[in-house]
Amino acid sequence: MTDETTRPWLDPLSVAAQTGTGYPNPFAAPLEGREKRRLGNALGLSQFGVNLVTLAPGSWSSQRHWHAEEDEFVYVLVGQVTLVTDAGEQVLGPGMAAGFPAGKADGHHLINRSDLPVLYLEVGTRAKAEVAQYSDIDMVARKDGGRFIFTRKNGEPYS
Amino acid sequence: MTDETTRPWLDPLSVAAQTGTGYPNPFAAPLEGREKRRLGNALGLSQFGVNLVTLAPGSWSSQRHWHAEEDEFVYVLVGQVTLVTDAGEQVLGPGMAAGFPAGKADGHHLINRSDLPVLYLEVGTRAKAEVAQYSDIDMVARKDGGRFIFTRKNGEPYS
Repeated sequence: MTDETTRPWLDPLSVAAQTGTGYPNPFAAPLEGREKRRLGNALGLSQFGVNLVTLAPGSWSSQRHWHAEEDEFVYVLVGQVTLVTDAGEQVLGPGMAAGFPAGKADGHHLINRSDLPVLYLEVGTRAKAEVAQYSDIDMVARKDGGRFIFTRKNGEPYS
Repeated sequence: MTDETTRPWLDPLSVAAQTGTGYPNPFAAPLEGREKRRLGNALGLSQFGVNLVTLAPGSWSSQRHWHAEEDEFVYVLVGQVTLVTDAGEQVLGPGMAAGFPAGKADGHHLINRSDLPVLYLEVGTRAKAEVAQYSDIDMVARKDGGRFIFTRKNGEPYS
């Protein structure tokens, strides 16, 4: 009765995994073991993104950052992942959740310090204009329309 | 370094389960076995809601409906749940996802037709003004500000 393009459900593993990041080098290297399956996009959603993310052992979710305009949410499905914030480190296992309200100036990221893959869901609002501040490196991201542009904090481009 | 009110992570089972609905009778009865834990709220998020939902055997997620303004997403964690849409029924097991774009006029709900509990995550945008249309009953919901008001389709109140 339905087909791939209109049916409202899917098997997440049928969605192609994407790797890579827009980060300039050397900031992209810690993310090499990250794969994202963009479930929300595949289901026709546009107001928020929902990604099924796999982190290989050693991989990071992102550089540590916080968003000015976009709420973020994480739910751990498989494995043990380390959440890093200004307060330190917290290991989160399956069934644990985390949330990062827009504008809260506490950078966060996830690191897989275990020997096994980690799988989690991440949800984030899609704001038209956005600034992401990076806590540990000389980088800022600005979105005005579609894509994030990454520069030094003084606005100079990375060459 | 952190406390309950500011830390960015939580154990979802530490969040109180809520039951009940604003539906007028007799439309509330099929939802009696539904419990929601409002994880997004507990983590300080406001742009979208994230609920961990339990459906007891026989229970429904809602009356079948679609939203004019708010995207919705579902990810099944435990059990087998039946998704009902205009196209018919589809059983979704753990790891399956569903999505309902705002304005798509195809009513949906979930029914637990199994003998075991079902557990899933639901995500929905928080639009300031919203209309939900119900597919199978004489009801419409309008939100203008905080809460949904439920009336007959001709606007008459339920007494």
